[in-house]
Amino acid sequence: MDVMKKSLQLHEQWQGKIEVVARVPVSSKEDLTMAYTPGVAQPCLEIQKDVNRSYELTRRHNLCAVITDGTAVLGLGDIGPEAGMPVMEGKCVLFKSFGNVDAFPLCIKSKDVDEKLKEKCDIPIFHDDQHGTAIITLAALTNALKVVGKKKEDVRIVTSGAGAAAISIVKLLLSAGYRNIIMTDRTGAIYEGREKLNWIKEEMAQVTNRNRETGTLQDVIKGADVFIGVSAPNTINGDMVKTMNRDPIVFACANPMPEISYEDAKTAGAKVVATGRSDYPNQVNNVLAFPGVFRGTFDVRASDINEEMKMAAAEAIASLVSDEELNEDYILPKAFDPRVGKTVAKAVAEAARKSGVARI
Amino acid sequence: MDVMKKSLQLHEQWQGKIEVVARVPVSSKEDLTMAYTPGVAQPCLEIQKDVNRSYELTRRHNLCAVITDGTAVLGLGDIGPEAGMPVMEGKCVLFKSFGNVDAFPLCIKSKDVDEKLKEKCDIPIFHDDQHGTAIITLAALTNALKVVGKKKEDVRIVTSGAGAAAISIVKLLLSAGYRNIIMTDRTGAIYEGREKLNWIKEEMAQVTNRNRETGTLQDVIKGADVFIGVSAPNTINGDMVKTMNRDPIVFACANPMPEISYEDAKTAGAKVVATGRSDYPNQVNNVLAFPGVFRGTFDVRASDINEEMKMAAAEAIASLVSDEELNEDYILPKAFDPRVGKTVAKAVAEAARKSGVARI
Repeated sequence: MDVMKKSLQLHEQWQGKIEVVARVPVSSKEDLTMAYTPGVAQPCLEIQKDVNRSYELTRRHNLCAVITDGTAVLGLGDIGPEAGMPVMEGKCVLFKSFGNVDAFPLCIKSKDVDEKLKEKCDIPIFHDDQHGTAIITLAALTNALKVVGKKKEDVRIVTSGAGAAAISIVKLLLSAGYRNIIMTDRTGAIYEGREKLNWIKEEMAQVTNRNRETGTLQDVIKGADVFIGVSAPNTINGDMVKTMNRDPIVFACANPMPEISYEDAKTAGAKVVATGRSDYPNQVNNVLAFPGVFRGTFDVRASDINEEMKMAAAEAIASLVSDEELNEDYILPKAFDPRVGKTVAKAVAEAARKSGVARI
Repeated sequence: MDVMKKSLQLHEQWQGKIEVVARVPVSSKEDLTMAYTPGVAQPCLEIQKDVNRSYELTRRHNLCAVITDGTAVLGLGDIGPEAGMPVMEGKCVLFKSFGNVDAFPLCIKSKDVDEKLKEKCDIPIFHDDQHGTAIITLAALTNALKVVGKKKEDVRIVTSGAGAAAISIVKLLLSAGYRNIIMTDRTGAIYEGREKLNWIKEEMAQVTNRNRETGTLQDVIKGADVFIGVSAPNTINGDMVKTMNRDPIVFACANPMPEISYEDAKTAGAKVVATGRSDYPNQVNNVLAFPGVFRGTFDVRASDINEEMKMAAAEAIASLVSDEELNEDYILPKAFDPRVGKTVAKAVAEAARKSGVARI
């Protein structure tokens, strides 16, 4: 039976992939008196006096909401909040299984999701499709460069796509010390002074493509060491890969169909190829990041998930592939490797402490 | 050790009374392929085609949010959303333990909670502090009348309080066939034509106090068979109870201090006394209602929780006290009686079917 059919059958059997369970007994009057009224009044009053006590007296220290408005689920597009639920439940399963984080899905029937969520909330916000992808991409690139024997300071990187995911990736790569990055959108290379750039592309034009190269993706990919696609299927072809520098690294992460297939990229001479797909080597899979990132964040009650913590997560993920294991088809640890969540958590917690956002 | 101190200690140990757990394994690549990408795309697409499939392919059929803005938690008043969390977690524990409902607390940091929540949502909404209290009050009154040998058609009922809870109680009593009810607020009896009534009291004045009696609570309680208090501590005294009809029924539900203490009411001649307190007989405790109400609602995927369902819940709760057990100090089943949730659920589901709101 094919994967899709079997998954549907399993979802029908499961009737939901998560549930909420009680951690305390309520089988006697005494139990009720403690967990509910009248005893529960005391922890309430304690928290009223000092709101920080809510982290000790409730599950707050370990709770996270997985939120979507259903407009961009996987590579499926705007399928609506209800249809986004199986993915959100899946993320909650992974949060618990790999990070021991209690995550609950909130699928919001509104497209007015506040852009300023981060400003409004005094809790850490993490856009998994942006920040999660950025972490894995950085981790993958760290190891891919080892495979081809190049240094981050030297490589020329070209992206296809200049949306939220691409911007998060580029920002993290810049934070991590990559210097030569050219972003492209449908119009071509983004450069300082290009007409009609929106504010965010304008901002990115200030920190990328410092030689103000112009032209199409086909033009600027020439001589590139790394291609990072977070755009659409079939954006590049083998001929374009052939124009890249020696031992090209191709991350074709459009989902479910990549910018170029693993086979075509390889045939054209790409040395390391990564995609979003689980049926090919080197899957760029966010599950390597978010459970451990939140575990680490919660462990030190961090007020934010900052660039330092994301870089630490990427470094931790990359470190789980040993020099002996490392090869062009094995640059990332397996998603279900039980070491990943813990290793990422530890690194993230440490980075939070060092960067001053830890609160315990 | 006293209850409050012990409860606080336990809450410190528990560090949260609920958690979210995975119902599916993710310990292999195959598992991940099914529960997450790429397999999860198939249930998503199925739901996109038919949104009703979300009840079969996700946990939606069993999920409920327990929402508060923290402005009226127990009898503690406006203590803030964080301080409301221990109570909300407690409710979630009870939902799971007594109704097998997956409930998750949402404590909202905003006082703009939309009054029109019910209009905006196409899911059942239940105001526990209003509707839950109404159900238990009706159940308690059903059995209290048996104790004193009176009929619902004949009794004179006087309430203290005309807020949301009192209104829900009175509406449910009217639905259930009670005829003679006088509501009072701080000004006294509410009657048709009284000046400066707000719209909701105006509405209640049309369906209660048909003789347009005027005067204070002290005036109108005279000759009453039943007093129902959902107002403030010490609103009535023994002398007022003495003016009631023979075998007075006194439900003094203000929390944590009732309108009159159990002892004072009894001393003044009240035959049946109920309060919100767990340390006296006849606790009016919402936990008897909400887990079973939602279990029944979910079992038939009801679109609403209507008056018929609430009456059925009250009848079911009352029925769990057998004629042999029934006495003035035992008019309600115990909160942790495992029969309650199931019996209420069955009755509620049946009432939903009969009243046309069941969807399966």
